[in-house]
Amino acid sequence: MAKYVFSNVIGSFVFDEKFKLADKVLFKDLSQYKNKKNSEEKLKNKYKDIKGISEEQLSKILQFFKNNKYFTDFYKKNLALTKEGIRDAVKDDVLIIQAINNIEDIEKVINILVKRLRDWYSFYNPEFSQSIESHEKFVELILKKDKKELLKEINIKKEETMGKDFSKKDLEPIMSLAKEISQLYDFRKKQESYLGSLMKGVCPNLAEVAGVLIGARLIEGAGSLRHLATLPSSVIQLIGAEKALFRHIRNKKNLPPKFGFIFAHNLIQRNMKNSGKAARTLADKIGIAVRVDYFKGKFIGDKLRKEVEEKLSIKIN
Amino acid sequence: MAKYVFSNVIGSFVFDEKFKLADKVLFKDLSQYKNKKNSEEKLKNKYKDIKGISEEQLSKILQFFKNNKYFTDFYKKNLALTKEGIRDAVKDDVLIIQAINNIEDIEKVINILVKRLRDWYSFYNPEFSQSIESHEKFVELILKKDKKELLKEINIKKEETMGKDFSKKDLEPIMSLAKEISQLYDFRKKQESYLGSLMKGVCPNLAEVAGVLIGARLIEGAGSLRHLATLPSSVIQLIGAEKALFRHIRNKKNLPPKFGFIFAHNLIQRNMKNSGKAARTLADKIGIAVRVDYFKGKFIGDKLRKEVEEKLSIKIN
Repeated sequence: MAKYVFSNVIGSFVFDEKFKLADKVLFKDLSQYKNKKNSEEKLKNKYKDIKGISEEQLSKILQFFKNNKYFTDFYKKNLALTKEGIRDAVKDDVLIIQAINNIEDIEKVINILVKRLRDWYSFYNPEFSQSIESHEKFVELILKKDKKELLKEINIKKEETMGKDFSKKDLEPIMSLAKEISQLYDFRKKQESYLGSLMKGVCPNLAEVAGVLIGARLIEGAGSLRHLATLPSSVIQLIGAEKALFRHIRNKKNLPPKFGFIFAHNLIQRNMKNSGKAARTLADKIGIAVRVDYFKGKFIGDKLRKEVEEKLSIKIN
Repeated sequence: MAKYVFSNVIGSFVFDEKFKLADKVLFKDLSQYKNKKNSEEKLKNKYKDIKGISEEQLSKILQFFKNNKYFTDFYKKNLALTKEGIRDAVKDDVLIIQAINNIEDIEKVINILVKRLRDWYSFYNPEFSQSIESHEKFVELILKKDKKELLKEINIKKEETMGKDFSKKDLEPIMSLAKEISQLYDFRKKQESYLGSLMKGVCPNLAEVAGVLIGARLIEGAGSLRHLATLPSSVIQLIGAEKALFRHIRNKKNLPPKFGFIFAHNLIQRNMKNSGKAARTLADKIGIAVRVDYFKGKFIGDKLRKEVEEKLSIKIN
């Protein structure tokens, strides 16, 4: 009598040639399902003449599980399996992507609020606001010093300023906006150091060669560390420049872009005269670094970085 | 001998008929310039036969001040006068405009960060994030309670959640993002109460009839309290709906808008079936309120508000 064995998430089942249930081993939990080979092996030893199943036979077996008796359990266990899959899909590169997106959001937010602060503060002390370009320094200084001190720093007498004197009540909201922004700057720094520690754990080579922020942006652009590791270096070179690339493809008038996110890398910035070559060399080594990281290789980031630096300094000097 | 008297920011001058300087009173500061009538009067008493000057004569007199001896002082005093003008232009409605713009910026910023927080937190506890719609409540609760308590609140067992367990190190940045957002909510409330106190000082009637936020938006839309006070109520009704209005004018397919910022007013919200009439009635009384405010009239806001409420309740019931 020919017998067929079939396993799904609720158990391993043995059917006779008329596809009636002959024997079964029900699983208590998902770990038993994951080791279904064990239970199948046992059944195969019990019934010597067990066969594999063809596609046609499979559809007959599946009919059997439409029975409510099995279906409820089947549904529940399958749901649990899916949920476990979703939980397991949250790998560390997902956290890297969230962290870098968060840093970019904080930057956006700081820009919105600093613009408002400058606008507002300029009614009070326009000369000082104009004298300083760095937003971060501006926020820091107006929190630390009062108007008199700030005017003295830029050599302007109190009678000469175009700014109006504000009452304490009217100055207070401006200063608390500045405090809010200053906190966001601190927050950004903390988030950057968290991202750095994530990167060092997940992809130390990438972090070393590309830098923490650029490395994280590359993972975010590729969608995952896994996908980034499969990309050729010519694509890595252009991640983040998709808009310019497609503009070039649509409309041949525009030159193709030379770099995406890696543009901000100091090796590119220092070699702007030869930026195309610098970008190719850097993207090449980033490609190696990320593959070593993905396959959990040793740390060779410092070596790779030195190689790029040497290659670029020879070409330039 | 005919004599001409002429004043500018540096002093009052007397010229003879050949346009030679005959006498002068130099001003020490801007306040003397503002009371130039006094010094002109004195000179007119000293030289009995003083005349007014025609346009042609004026140009001859102005030639005289091209002399460097006067020009430096002229330039300096004029600059000081302009600066004073700029300082004095910062009226309280400028602060209202800054405050309402700031509140809107904070809202924008909170939306950006909350979206990020929801996205990030959903890897950790998706069921709870989905169960609660209000962003503010969501932030408050995840800061107050841990995952176990939150899951219990929505009746989900720990094994059933799709969320991954995070290490303390990975949870920390999410929680500090939540804290940052919670602070911004507090900041927004403080700024709103500051705006309220400004409005009560500058335009108590407008604040009473339109409400603090809508009133401030109307001033911001009009550009100043002064301009708002000159607008007919049919325009006030549509401030904030410029886009829809011009879409209607360009393209007759779209209906004209019925309301701009006043749409959010609770008298409109409660009378949505008759919203056009409600908007006209409300805009009418807002127009009166803002004019009373601009001309520093008495507080009649409560009376105006009662009038709108009565008119609208009669029409509806």
